[in-house]
Amino acid sequence: MRLLTFLSDFGLDSPYPAAMKAVAAAICDARFLDISHAVPRHGIRTGAYLLWSVAPLCPEGTVHCAVVDPGVGTARAPLAVRAGGHIFVGPDNGLLLPAARRLGRPEVYRLTDPAYWRHPVSATFHGRDIFAPVAAHLSAGVALEAVGAPAPDFVDAALEEGGWDGPALRGTVLWVDPFGNLVTTIPGGLLSGWGAGPQVVVEVGVRTLPAALGRTFGDVPAGRAVILEGSDGFVEIALNRGRAADELGASPGNPVRIRRADIGS
Amino acid sequence: MRLLTFLSDFGLDSPYPAAMKAVAAAICDARFLDISHAVPRHGIRTGAYLLWSVAPLCPEGTVHCAVVDPGVGTARAPLAVRAGGHIFVGPDNGLLLPAARRLGRPEVYRLTDPAYWRHPVSATFHGRDIFAPVAAHLSAGVALEAVGAPAPDFVDAALEEGGWDGPALRGTVLWVDPFGNLVTTIPGGLLSGWGAGPQVVVEVGVRTLPAALGRTFGDVPAGRAVILEGSDGFVEIALNRGRAADELGASPGNPVRIRRADIGS
Amino acid sequence: MRLLTFLSDFGLDSPYPAAMKAVAAAICDARFLDISHAVPRHGIRTGAYLLWSVAPLCPEGTVHCAVVDPGVGTARAPLAVRAGGHIFVGPDNGLLLPAARRLGRPEVYRLTDPAYWRHPVSATFHGRDIFAPVAAHLSAGVALEAVGAPAPDFVDAALEEGGWDGPALRGTVLWVDPFGNLVTTIPGGLLSGWGAGPQVVVEVGVRTLPAALGRTFGDVPAGRAVILEGSDGFVEIALNRGRAADELGASPGNPVRIRRADIGS
Repeated sequence: MRLLTFLSDFGLDSPYPAAMKAVAAAICDARFLDISHAVPRHGIRTGAYLLWSVAPLCPEGTVHCAVVDPGVGTARAPLAVRAGGHIFVGPDNGLLLPAARRLGRPEVYRLTDPAYWRHPVSATFHGRDIFAPVAAHLSAGVALEAVGAPAPDFVDAALEEGGWDGPALRGTVLWVDPFGNLVTTIPGGLLSGWGAGPQVVVEVGVRTLPAALGRTFGDVPAGRAVILEGSDGFVEIALNRGRAADELGASPGNPVRIRRADIGS
Repeated sequence: MRLLTFLSDFGLDSPYPAAMKAVAAAICDARFLDISHAVPRHGIRTGAYLLWSVAPLCPEGTVHCAVVDPGVGTARAPLAVRAGGHIFVGPDNGLLLPAARRLGRPEVYRLTDPAYWRHPVSATFHGRDIFAPVAAHLSAGVALEAVGAPAPDFVDAALEEGGWDGPALRGTVLWVDPFGNLVTTIPGGLLSGWGAGPQVVVEVGVRTLPAALGRTFGDVPAGRAVILEGSDGFVEIALNRGRAADELGASPGNPVRIRRADIGS
Repeated sequence: MRLLTFLSDFGLDSPYPAAMKAVAAAICDARFLDISHAVPRHGIRTGAYLLWSVAPLCPEGTVHCAVVDPGVGTARAPLAVRAGGHIFVGPDNGLLLPAARRLGRPEVYRLTDPAYWRHPVSATFHGRDIFAPVAAHLSAGVALEAVGAPAPDFVDAALEEGGWDGPALRGTVLWVDPFGNLVTTIPGGLLSGWGAGPQVVVEVGVRTLPAALGRTFGDVPAGRAVILEGSDGFVEIALNRGRAADELGASPGNPVRIRRADIGS
């Protein structure tokens, strides 16, 4: 059975995701999967990260309809991007590219044939009127070449990657998960450079949190912080049975630095 | 594949929607679609609006199970309403009628045959014990005439419609979307009566918000308000990158008035 | 069509449920059903109650993937439990047993064959890497005996049951539903011991709430409390159009006592 996923910043208490799925249900028989509709409003980078995180878990042939679209109704183009046997449909603002690049070499198309859209096209809800119906037609087997044409240019984007900065690790907060854990842009493999578990200090702005290196959340007592390689392969900062994000006042986009406690600031 | 939708005021963190779907899954093979389970508690009018908004996007043959039911366990009747190739199942309190009328001429039935219910019927959860199993049987092909009988009377309801009141537009707040945008009962087509974009003032109670006429959210700078025809065809009031509902202290049911800024109050 | 359910404490705004379902979608064609992803963090007892409440409504052959797992990555075993034609997959911490026992005699297996897991297995996300793929393989028809071996021991758990304590009913708050209603561990059938509706007093800690016995929420005026047999067969305490949990300051796990108003404390 084909899979058709949906991601948006429409909010959990919104009927807009249902509107997109209702339109798609009239076009294709795919199984639907909501990746998230709780992307922060206009949070293109967070949406791009969540799509990057979940899309590769889906089977080949999956179509992804992703709508974080502050420019809806303006001149920004609607896109479909094919990579690694998946297709991503959404606005031309960088949302789709990190996930597509993780799966293969992206072929970027502009949606040009209104025959695959819902009419009249609302100026404020392209998710319902353009992206969902096109995604559903693609899931039903319509060729990418039928719904659009190769894009002469497009907004590219990549998940930035943290790394070593002298003796410290430096990166950015990519996401705060519902447990208050910080997912950073620092590759988890770099933690092995520190050998067997020194004490470290996490810095976000002027706030600091002492932490231990570990492998899972339970490696430190309740109330203590742990630095580990998370399920996406990035360094995560967690407070066992607490919220690291609250301790550090951290939000997506904040710079983060991790240094050995015995080396000083 | 048949579509079976669910709408309720059970809340997003509730297992009650899953209980309804589990019961339905044991009866029919339909694809399930949640329209919303975040209808404000006992918010019959809001639920009716959301059903009115999403149901017409669903394919013919869709059955809708809608439960906003302050009278559960009392004498209010359980209904099934057929219109335009769709069937709506839920309590007799007006919830179903606006959506049904939008799709066609409603044929209203009372659910009378307990053979299609789950037993024992709880006094507090007809969604699980009456509405979901009946909706699933209807989706599986059981005839409406088998599950019930024509209703001698029923609670009717319509989405009220705003309009001109002298030189101003007057209506009601129908819904506050998750972005804080106000959806009003004023038909969007009326905005063309004002010609090319005068400045207007929105009034909700004693609070006012100056705004421009526009076509999409990005037509005004960040922090400015815009009046536009929304994706449902109604006048919407939005604050670009802000929350119009908070600025105006507006909630569903509040009267709203929009006047030209140069004509005075 | 086979049903595969998911329950977790991952939170409504999390992509982790989608990650589990994406992995499962690549393995099986089952229809997916989310029981709840809003279990309080690490709330094993609440998760066990919700699974106990919803699982028996699902058709025979359903597989349930349940993940409330404070011990992820530690030595706690991964389990699959067969009972009454259903299979439950999740951590060995008592989460699965109450639901399984409600359906039949549990056969408890430890998951031992990594051929049915996703690799590499993250130390922090067994839901995605062990429980979801095993549940999907089981749903697709793989034998329980293939994925694991009988468990020599396991963490058992039961929903405790309240009852008479002299002239009063005594139990525990099992769940606070989204309406603020308290679901207790007291069997609803015991209410009949009080005959036709005396006034009662509910006590949680030092706070008290006078209430009437009833059959449904509408049996008392708005703002008044009612004690009734809820849809799960337990005694529930509700405030008509209000939140009993707020009035009583009550949370899951709190002891609750209900006594006749005319008998004294």
